[in-house]
Amino acid sequence: MSLDHNWFTEIANGYGMSLQVREKIHDEQSPCQHIEVFDTETFGRLLTLDGMTMLTSRDHFIHHEMMTHPALFTHSAPRQVVIVGGGDCGTLKEALKHKVVKQVVQVELDERVTRVAERYFPELCESNGDPRAVLLFEDAIKWMQEAQAGSADIIILDTTEPVGQATRLFGAPFYGDCLRVLRQGGIMVTQSGSPLFNLDFLKGMRKEMNAAGFESLMTIQFSLCTYPSGWWSATLARKNQNFGDFREQNVRRKSFDTRYYNADIHRASQVLPTFLQEALAE
Amino acid sequence: MSLDHNWFTEIANGYGMSLQVREKIHDEQSPCQHIEVFDTETFGRLLTLDGMTMLTSRDHFIHHEMMTHPALFTHSAPRQVVIVGGGDCGTLKEALKHKVVKQVVQVELDERVTRVAERYFPELCESNGDPRAVLLFEDAIKWMQEAQAGSADIIILDTTEPVGQATRLFGAPFYGDCLRVLRQGGIMVTQSGSPLFNLDFLKGMRKEMNAAGFESLMTIQFSLCTYPSGWWSATLARKNQNFGDFREQNVRRKSFDTRYYNADIHRASQVLPTFLQEALAE
Repeated sequence: MSLDHNWFTEIANGYGMSLQVREKIHDEQSPCQHIEVFDTETFGRLLTLDGMTMLTSRDHFIHHEMMTHPALFTHSAPRQVVIVGGGDCGTLKEALKHKVVKQVVQVELDERVTRVAERYFPELCESNGDPRAVLLFEDAIKWMQEAQAGSADIIILDTTEPVGQATRLFGAPFYGDCLRVLRQGGIMVTQSGSPLFNLDFLKGMRKEMNAAGFESLMTIQFSLCTYPSGWWSATLARKNQNFGDFREQNVRRKSFDTRYYNADIHRASQVLPTFLQEALAE
Repeated sequence: MSLDHNWFTEIANGYGMSLQVREKIHDEQSPCQHIEVFDTETFGRLLTLDGMTMLTSRDHFIHHEMMTHPALFTHSAPRQVVIVGGGDCGTLKEALKHKVVKQVVQVELDERVTRVAERYFPELCESNGDPRAVLLFEDAIKWMQEAQAGSADIIILDTTEPVGQATRLFGAPFYGDCLRVLRQGGIMVTQSGSPLFNLDFLKGMRKEMNAAGFESLMTIQFSLCTYPSGWWSATLARKNQNFGDFREQNVRRKSFDTRYYNADIHRASQVLPTFLQEALAE
């Protein structure tokens, strides 16, 4: 069966993921990238950057919750949060659900992504006006170099794929800056690709984190239909502290709703299939 | 980006999954269905039935292991195993890895699927000559009606999607026959679709199992790149017994290799995201 032009298709590793499109409702070349929004038949709205799926209305909750809550419920008191990228503001919204959070600084290079999200994904931007939210539009590499040492509890790298500009966000120099900016026990979390397609990348990223001085790493995994291979991971790295227990009782009594994340998922997402355990132990 | 004819595409629910094809190496209309085999660029060989992905060389291990080992390591002594469908013989091979198994009877309607698998997927058919394997090519509905009550410990429904002929394998009448054929404490396991795409189907299937007399159900989930949505489930149903513990020590000391399944995965695969817990509790 072949797909006509009414489909958006993303190809990676000889594998294609396609969503049936009703209409393209936004098409813009920002100074940074090509931003498109589509109305799809069954996934609600779709946001793409340079042809790569960023999110759909239907399944973004999995990504946004898993980039946020495992880290924030592991840290004993995550007061200061930094988000790098995250222009769609879904991760910001999840982080701000935590009452213990005093401030979230979001450092996104491309202001247009946030403006487009505000227009087409208002449900993700509901918390943009929260007095605890600080939205900056600038280069995160430079921002992190200049940020005060020991000023953050959590750094979430909610970035695009490691191509072009974004490549610099996946190496030891940048991770070293993040380590410096974190307080003792602080946690950095980054998307780390598909366990099936990007295993070498994942292994390389973990080595870069070690090289930067992070000793404790934890890779978590979850299904994510609209990212290449439908299987995704995030990797957490902690400053001078093992991961140990998470605040399980706080998760069980949390004051906000989640659709994917819960206390058992927190634990289960850390469990890796045998081939992945073996690859990461090499 | 659009896909030319060098791609195999399967479409479901406004979502397409495509694999880049080098060459179609088999194309046959059996009395039952259209059987095709492709050499793909990055997934090894691909077997399709009536245009639906059955397996690829690259990721079939996830499906075959998860259809087999959670059930066999839950049962205290799974001596008699029945497989319905399973013509590619991958599930058969996994079941026969268990030394405690005395016999596996596989009831596949279409002998041609097995013959094609023997030719193009010899690695799946390595155990077809095992003296404990009995390969029957006949209608499983009739076979199950006529099978002796209390003669099986495990019944694995490794079937195609519930369309056409296969629909009858997903309803209370057939589940009732399986219940009768199981011994006390016996376990039936069936593929139960995508938690994202087939939630109503999954709920309906569980109701059919309850209606047939199965009281204890357990749905497990795992990523499976080449099935629609990349996220898949299986549902286990136990005869007159709760699931309770599995033989964890036996898993940790098992005499055979697995690439996906392990003791922690056994437990983690039972953990469901919040939206799925809520849907199944309705």
